[in-house]
Amino acid sequence: MSDFEQWQELARQLRVDSIRTSSAAASGHPTSSLSAADLMAVLMSKHLHYDFDEPENPNNDHLVFSKGHASPLLYAMYRAAGAIDNEELMTYRQLGSRLPGHPMPSALPYVDVATGSLGQGLPIGVGIALAGKQLDYLPYRVWVLCGDSEMTEGSMWEAFEHAGHFGLDNLTAIIDVNRLGQRGFTMHQWDVNAFVKPAEAFGWKAIVIDGHDVEAIDEAYTEAAGTPGSPTVIIAKTIKGKGVTEVEDRNEAHGKPVKDEETAIKELGGESNVSVQVSKPITDQAPHVFEVAGAELPQFKVGEEVATRKAYGQALTALGSHRGDVVCLDGEISNSTHAEIFTKAHPGRYFEMYIAEQLMVAAATGIQVRGWVPYASTFAAFWSRAYDFIRMAAISGADLNLCGSHAGVSIGEDGASQMGLEDIAMFRAVHGSTVLHPSDANQTAQLVWQMADLKGIRYLRTARPALPVIYEPDEEFHVGGAHVAKRSDDDKVTIVAAGICVHEALEAAETLDGEGLAVRVIDAYSIKPIDADTLQEAARDTGRLITVEDHWPEGGLGDAVLEVFADSDLTPRIVKIAVRKIPGSAPSKELIKDSGIDAASIADAARKLAKTDPR
Amino acid sequence: MSDFEQWQELARQLRVDSIRTSSAAASGHPTSSLSAADLMAVLMSKHLHYDFDEPENPNNDHLVFSKGHASPLLYAMYRAAGAIDNEELMTYRQLGSRLPGHPMPSALPYVDVATGSLGQGLPIGVGIALAGKQLDYLPYRVWVLCGDSEMTEGSMWEAFEHAGHFGLDNLTAIIDVNRLGQRGFTMHQWDVNAFVKPAEAFGWKAIVIDGHDVEAIDEAYTEAAGTPGSPTVIIAKTIKGKGVTEVEDRNEAHGKPVKDEETAIKELGGESNVSVQVSKPITDQAPHVFEVAGAELPQFKVGEEVATRKAYGQALTALGSHRGDVVCLDGEISNSTHAEIFTKAHPGRYFEMYIAEQLMVAAATGIQVRGWVPYASTFAAFWSRAYDFIRMAAISGADLNLCGSHAGVSIGEDGASQMGLEDIAMFRAVHGSTVLHPSDANQTAQLVWQMADLKGIRYLRTARPALPVIYEPDEEFHVGGAHVAKRSDDDKVTIVAAGICVHEALEAAETLDGEGLAVRVIDAYSIKPIDADTLQEAARDTGRLITVEDHWPEGGLGDAVLEVFADSDLTPRIVKIAVRKIPGSAPSKELIKDSGIDAASIADAARKLAKTDPR
Repeated sequence: MSDFEQWQELARQLRVDSIRTSSAAASGHPTSSLSAADLMAVLMSKHLHYDFDEPENPNNDHLVFSKGHASPLLYAMYRAAGAIDNEELMTYRQLGSRLPGHPMPSALPYVDVATGSLGQGLPIGVGIALAGKQLDYLPYRVWVLCGDSEMTEGSMWEAFEHAGHFGLDNLTAIIDVNRLGQRGFTMHQWDVNAFVKPAEAFGWKAIVIDGHDVEAIDEAYTEAAGTPGSPTVIIAKTIKGKGVTEVEDRNEAHGKPVKDEETAIKELGGESNVSVQVSKPITDQAPHVFEVAGAELPQFKVGEEVATRKAYGQALTALGSHRGDVVCLDGEISNSTHAEIFTKAHPGRYFEMYIAEQLMVAAATGIQVRGWVPYASTFAAFWSRAYDFIRMAAISGADLNLCGSHAGVSIGEDGASQMGLEDIAMFRAVHGSTVLHPSDANQTAQLVWQMADLKGIRYLRTARPALPVIYEPDEEFHVGGAHVAKRSDDDKVTIVAAGICVHEALEAAETLDGEGLAVRVIDAYSIKPIDADTLQEAARDTGRLITVEDHWPEGGLGDAVLEVFADSDLTPRIVKIAVRKIPGSAPSKELIKDSGIDAASIADAARKLAKTDPR
Repeated sequence: MSDFEQWQELARQLRVDSIRTSSAAASGHPTSSLSAADLMAVLMSKHLHYDFDEPENPNNDHLVFSKGHASPLLYAMYRAAGAIDNEELMTYRQLGSRLPGHPMPSALPYVDVATGSLGQGLPIGVGIALAGKQLDYLPYRVWVLCGDSEMTEGSMWEAFEHAGHFGLDNLTAIIDVNRLGQRGFTMHQWDVNAFVKPAEAFGWKAIVIDGHDVEAIDEAYTEAAGTPGSPTVIIAKTIKGKGVTEVEDRNEAHGKPVKDEETAIKELGGESNVSVQVSKPITDQAPHVFEVAGAELPQFKVGEEVATRKAYGQALTALGSHRGDVVCLDGEISNSTHAEIFTKAHPGRYFEMYIAEQLMVAAATGIQVRGWVPYASTFAAFWSRAYDFIRMAAISGADLNLCGSHAGVSIGEDGASQMGLEDIAMFRAVHGSTVLHPSDANQTAQLVWQMADLKGIRYLRTARPALPVIYEPDEEFHVGGAHVAKRSDDDKVTIVAAGICVHEALEAAETLDGEGLAVRVIDAYSIKPIDADTLQEAARDTGRLITVEDHWPEGGLGDAVLEVFADSDLTPRIVKIAVRKIPGSAPSKELIKDSGIDAASIADAARKLAKTDPR
């Protein structure tokens, strides 16, 4: 049998298996799989280099299904490669199966990242390709199968623009232009120029082919791998549901099994057991290692005025000198987030992502696929731009360090658009996340270092104003802890705060002390996980809590504290102080006051609360 | 004085005023204003049609500063137009001023939308232009001043692609290519082809000019307004800080006042009082009105199986027949969200936004600027893609109805990537938002109609499964209310649920009834605002609450309920049932069980809780 015939035979099997799995599951996307079967048959037969016996081989290529709903095709490929057997293939979409509706790395070692939210696979592929070129220095290739419908997501064009800018010739995007979306025609249908022109404009090589012509597909992959200096996109004109008359090029055949499985399989030539020996990696090189000189945690003197964002930059830079696996990304504001300090010290491990937060998270996700430890930073407010990417990164089980600077009204004059006031809520609601919000430079430094070894999405919230260092460098802070910043045996009220609000709380406490009202102050720098023990002790001792945050009332520190007492024997009265109106523009101190999260407002609330009976 | 000289004179004043305001405020972005001063001087002198005496005139052009940080320039223009005086100009960035750091419509009637989160102004402009062509049928033009740095946001390319697709020849984008971002060079610096090529690829006319040549600027605007069938982008090569030697084309001069104000103003020719008579609108036509036939709220029979997403589509369609100002948008999944029903009934008021959630929110924001009432829908999970746009829409004071279907694990086989499990947290943390989550078709229908007249961001969460209608059509539901679905005088525990969990709760309650344990069930369909009275009554009567939600534990219904009792005399024990692990793929009922939010899990929790002492 010629290569062409073998590829066609494999493609037929991939189609049959896509029909079988989705029919068995009574759900799934067989038609979206059928359109890309030839593309993937040729890829895995000749161009993909992947050792299925050793998925952790650092020289393996990466194959990302940006159109994650074509999972039946992906799993059919795994079966053909001998990575899963027929029995497992038929567990598709069953509880406990390794083959969920959209691919997830937690289930299968061959899957790098979870996809299914369209427009994310290619941006993540950019990150993996960047790692290949600029971190690992390895010749693996990144292949990304994209849908045509997802090309209207701006994140795809972000990926095109950045990949072109970075000259990622180790990246190949394959667009399956089957012209049918979920509910009807795509924006551009089969007008392939609608993809060619922007791709070329962004510096990519574009190759248009008939996506069912295996010879043309083979040539295109060869050309892609042999085009130095720029990424390549293969724009494959295909037919959705190809090979099965019942659904071929038919609207309303999206995302459901075929009605007549038997006829479909018969039409495709029946079940088969074709197996493919996927090529092994082309090299056995070891990934590049960055040599480091070693460093200690930076230390700050009590009383010195240092913004926590500045401490972030310094601690991260030191961490970069301590560990060669730490890399840094920023969204064109590194002189504000202070990632800039890292940039200057470790230019080879810094990635300027420009103003493209979605791509920044995607790239960080791709970079951690390769075992690197990314720290990415932007304003706290602008992480909201990438929330879907963060959500999906958590589903991927990705380990990301994200720093949001310029949190809250304390930024001052720039006004509401630049103020992160929902970031804690947003990050708390990410599965398995860690949320940290330090008040002081030494605390920040310790947390920045500890973050590196946590699992999942770790968020560090820093602030703009330079405020006095309040803790000695040898004071210890840890994720999950809280620091009792002020206490006495006579405390009548406890103020729980984080970040700049700790400073306001301490000022309020001092005022109240002068009035004979003793209050405890807890610096709850670890918001998730929160230190329940310290809060419970305070509840037992004082019976009354005030939470203070430079954040909207919903989903922040206050809610984290409420949760501790929901189903506990302790019933402290809890007053939540938070930002409750859209802030204006004014100097930091004025806005803190105007928002009612200042020392005076805290003191007022404490006086009032102290007069109530503990519950 | 020739026109050219007059424009140059005006540009000089705009520069001087940009310096003056930012120096007075000791913050702001004068250099980003200086680069665009000539562009705006010519625009307001000749091409803009806007009645500053009547900002609500429906024939006014719209000018959006996508680069919102150039607010000194915008306010200088308002002064030159006589809309604000010199005294007010100098209140820039002061508490209570109408001139915040980035433009906000709450402050000034001439501002349509808040900007400052880059990459949003142009997408919103697309929405306004769409309204002009397809709703208002009015010839106003939309002018959007864009920064070059923000062109790396994918949302800008979404805007380009969609505007090209829609043929919005009433839209002109002006890119101020000053080549310097906040921290250094932009990705493309002065390589204007990096903007021309993608713009043309997306179907725009592109005109490259020297952005300081007033004659060329004039010609470009004339050409833009005279190009039928496609939007135009003017790519203006400029110098950041133009006209002030201290900062001209200098890195590190971003986002701060000049050091030497006096010299800068002197160099620019000193203060002046040039005033401009901005042209009035070119017509006094009334906006188009869609005639409607009238309709009643749809009604559903108790016991009939109807998904709340289906009820959304039907209710919205009826609302569209009842009110001519209601319009609908969807992100290429209208057959799943059931927006499709509206599409078929009211095709002239439906916008297919394809898979581009950011642009969908932006377009809806633009459409509501024109007084229309947009309802936009996608999967609950995918609103996370547009969170920054939703956040900014709230700061704009925009009135948007957003529907998120396919919430939670109850969607079943498609798996975690498609499940909205953080959407309630996300929407609760939007300032001034409303969050609704109905359990039944009749309830859904009433809420869909009531949403139309609320203020701010209103979120409706619907579910995929068809479940029995449980309420009679004449049962009344209202925003801020809750429905006691089951009660007796002997209730020992209250189960608070919403959406599909109400069905699980009722099933649990029935089981427990059979065991002699009476429990109350509250359908908390209005999560924000929540019905504190009904919850307090339940706390008084039963002392023990269970909250159940198809959502992560953080920021959802459970937290909304905890908040009610934070500082209350009531101290019910509250057990929160929520999704606590990443769901797999399986049929809906299996996943509900596997996630521990099913009737059996609720019943177990209730049995256990009933044995505790009320606190």
